[in-house]
Amino acid sequence: MQKKNDVLEKVVSLAKRKGFVFQSSEIYGGLNGCWDYGPLGVELLRNIKEEWWKSMTYREDVEGLDASILMHPRVWEASGHVENFTDPMIDCKQCKSRFRVDTLGDAMADKKKNKAMQAFEEKINSAGGEKLNAMKSVYEIYEDLDDRFESVLENKTIAFDLLEEINCPTCGNKGGFTEPRSFNLMFKTFVGPVESSDNAVYLRPETAQGIFVNFLNVQGASRQKLPFGIAQIGKAFRNEINTKNFLFRTREFEQMEMQYFVKPEEDKKHYDYWKEKRMEWYKSLGMKAEKLRFHDHPEDKLAHYAKDATDVEYEFPFGWGEIEGIHNRTDFDLGRHQQYSGKSQQYFDDESKEKFVPYIIETSAGASRSFMAFLVDAYDEEEVKGETRVVMHFHPRLAPIKAAIFPLVNKDGMPEIARKIEADLRPHMRVFYDSKGAVGRRYRRQDEAGTPFCITVDTQSLEDNTVTVRERDSMEQERIKIDELLVHLLKKLK
Amino acid sequence: MQKKNDVLEKVVSLAKRKGFVFQSSEIYGGLNGCWDYGPLGVELLRNIKEEWWKSMTYREDVEGLDASILMHPRVWEASGHVENFTDPMIDCKQCKSRFRVDTLGDAMADKKKNKAMQAFEEKINSAGGEKLNAMKSVYEIYEDLDDRFESVLENKTIAFDLLEEINCPTCGNKGGFTEPRSFNLMFKTFVGPVESSDNAVYLRPETAQGIFVNFLNVQGASRQKLPFGIAQIGKAFRNEINTKNFLFRTREFEQMEMQYFVKPEEDKKHYDYWKEKRMEWYKSLGMKAEKLRFHDHPEDKLAHYAKDATDVEYEFPFGWGEIEGIHNRTDFDLGRHQQYSGKSQQYFDDESKEKFVPYIIETSAGASRSFMAFLVDAYDEEEVKGETRVVMHFHPRLAPIKAAIFPLVNKDGMPEIARKIEADLRPHMRVFYDSKGAVGRRYRRQDEAGTPFCITVDTQSLEDNTVTVRERDSMEQERIKIDELLVHLLKKLK
Repeated sequence: MQKKNDVLEKVVSLAKRKGFVFQSSEIYGGLNGCWDYGPLGVELLRNIKEEWWKSMTYREDVEGLDASILMHPRVWEASGHVENFTDPMIDCKQCKSRFRVDTLGDAMADKKKNKAMQAFEEKINSAGGEKLNAMKSVYEIYEDLDDRFESVLENKTIAFDLLEEINCPTCGNKGGFTEPRSFNLMFKTFVGPVESSDNAVYLRPETAQGIFVNFLNVQGASRQKLPFGIAQIGKAFRNEINTKNFLFRTREFEQMEMQYFVKPEEDKKHYDYWKEKRMEWYKSLGMKAEKLRFHDHPEDKLAHYAKDATDVEYEFPFGWGEIEGIHNRTDFDLGRHQQYSGKSQQYFDDESKEKFVPYIIETSAGASRSFMAFLVDAYDEEEVKGETRVVMHFHPRLAPIKAAIFPLVNKDGMPEIARKIEADLRPHMRVFYDSKGAVGRRYRRQDEAGTPFCITVDTQSLEDNTVTVRERDSMEQERIKIDELLVHLLKKLK
Repeated sequence: MQKKNDVLEKVVSLAKRKGFVFQSSEIYGGLNGCWDYGPLGVELLRNIKEEWWKSMTYREDVEGLDASILMHPRVWEASGHVENFTDPMIDCKQCKSRFRVDTLGDAMADKKKNKAMQAFEEKINSAGGEKLNAMKSVYEIYEDLDDRFESVLENKTIAFDLLEEINCPTCGNKGGFTEPRSFNLMFKTFVGPVESSDNAVYLRPETAQGIFVNFLNVQGASRQKLPFGIAQIGKAFRNEINTKNFLFRTREFEQMEMQYFVKPEEDKKHYDYWKEKRMEWYKSLGMKAEKLRFHDHPEDKLAHYAKDATDVEYEFPFGWGEIEGIHNRTDFDLGRHQQYSGKSQQYFDDESKEKFVPYIIETSAGASRSFMAFLVDAYDEEEVKGETRVVMHFHPRLAPIKAAIFPLVNKDGMPEIARKIEADLRPHMRVFYDSKGAVGRRYRRQDEAGTPFCITVDTQSLEDNTVTVRERDSMEQERIKIDELLVHLLKKLK
């Protein structure tokens, strides 16, 4: 068994070498928390998004949407992001380094977490009122680092006595930190030539709000009735202080969200349906079942807007991580937008003749995180005839290149036949033509790209109009008539 | 003939009503210059982008890319955007309104352009040195409003004597303007918790730079040789002072760009090839030939980086407007990035054993502008039996919904057959089921959505397993066997 972190390093290295993922602006030293998808990566990402879009919107009860990234600033007041989407930050008084409080929690964990936590709990028990609440919030940060938004809610300035116990991770100075201050994780910019708070807008930190504020527009135009959903794929941005784990926590990322509007009394039924449906989606695209699990949020840990919540988690080399969240958001979102906009967000039910604000079942998947999960999940090393074969076991529907075409040698009419095959296949799928180097090396290059089928034109092809089709995972070869190649491949690619 | 502006108004109104395009954050009064694509719009946009992607990257010599929106700030120093991507702005001293100088040009045009321009030209003729250059730049703004970036290049503070001649469009006060100041059109934000110039980054104002800085990464990973291209679809942002004409000038928009890297001596050949190829693309998707033209930039009007440049223009209701630019950018971009990054951007040519910086032929299409052109181009009103039929003549490959399925009446087994047809077609195309209202009204609704085929299950269907297929443009109906329906439609949709 190789070490788990080795796997991540290997995947990152292969991602760069083969053109899946590059560092953003690499020639300028990169931009932390931003990544570019290269030729193979963009196809894998497109295929993941396409599969999601088809599975979510090729149904009668779901409509698509593509809302803008810049939205009216009141949207983020209504959503609670302006007030609450914050991280508590502290500075070391000695070396001026700035830290997100929860990362000091990590530092502590390595050193003296138990002792400190014990002291902290005693303080909590003896404290009261506002200070108690603030300290409790900090305590929650330790317990669930991934739920920052919810856990620091209503927690603006934190009385964080525990900081006295911690050394600065940079200079080692003990307990010399400033009071925590809150730092909003939304990127802010200004519309128009004047940089004043009147003109401030934000890059959306989630795509969901674009769906919520369009609920009645979409419902009116599409004439949908409850229950129905609105699906959207798009970029979102969070000014993370600490980006980490490759594509897992980045500043710019892509989401695939579907918000399903339901009658309040039917919430449980639809929540359960989508929970199963979404898990099934990852498995149907070949993600290993043993690497997937639900993490249901216990009742006392639910976000303020949620009645039920679960994460679909994937076991990355660094541990289990959320790749999708399914939430019963109740009528919180539409209720808030109704309140802040002054526009009714009620739905009129034809049958019962009642007006009400629908509940929302949210399925919020990370496109970037799914991409990373599919990439890690596909990675494999095998011993083949004493050599290491690196192979990406992508599901054929996700594979960036569907088929590679090789003339065995670059003469004797083989290139002509291979080029003819390439031309015939190209309108139907992404293909790759390679005539360079030994065929064994060409196979290896396609294994690393995750190409499910390699087609070789050899001497026998000249005689009987057949080619070998080599399957990536089994490495088995079969001879197929050139005439039947397209149909053969299309069947396998379904 | 209806008035041209009426057409735009009608298209905007239909776009909202049918769910093509909504105002962003409409319930909060909208966000100027930002738009959301509704259920039909997102499909049309996806189809346009998909057609572009296939035509540009399903070839051996073009690789795909998806670079991040946030890039290292040095990118925009190298590209010239930090210094030069500016508009000159002035304030009215009396009412404090702020204007982009060129919009006052518009205001002038209505009133006394000739007189003022004459005076201005005299002043130019009598002026010299720096002031002359500055004034010339302003003059160019009048001549070519769309070429702002290039025309105000090297024009930081403009001595704009002509302002004495103009009334403030808001308060009417004459000549009481501040000196023009330059205003950068890039949206700025800050990475990390400190808002200082060290941490400033920009939302990319064009996708091209993401391609340029990845040139060697992509070339290395894909093992491409010159000539080859890199294609990318993505959002870009410009802090326009005056947004206008629906989707034509917006703050947030989407581009479809392909940058083709060539040997310097072969630039003309590839420029000519792509120029024709790109024009052909619009026509192949049904855009009316008489509404399309090239606007070649005369040599004395070329941008600083360009050796050859042409726009593909579409005749919108408000006049001809650029929907794509094809440029010979020479070695300007890679040369600048080489200079600013200190990293060689040279390509080694195997055959000649020479190293050089490639030339770039750029094809830069607006996805949002193409969307608007296809939308406007498809719009039509016809008199049918004394009634006005509004119909969107989308090319079948672009149509958001491919086929609608109607049971003639909602009983007698017709819904069951119609639902069966729906289920059979849905995995292959976007379909829509409608059982509400008279069939004539259902046809009209699909005409407005641009659905090319309407399938009706009627009494005869119960007897002989056929349906009527009604073609949108001709309104002709033919009877097709249900068994042969899928193949029939797939053929027509090609």
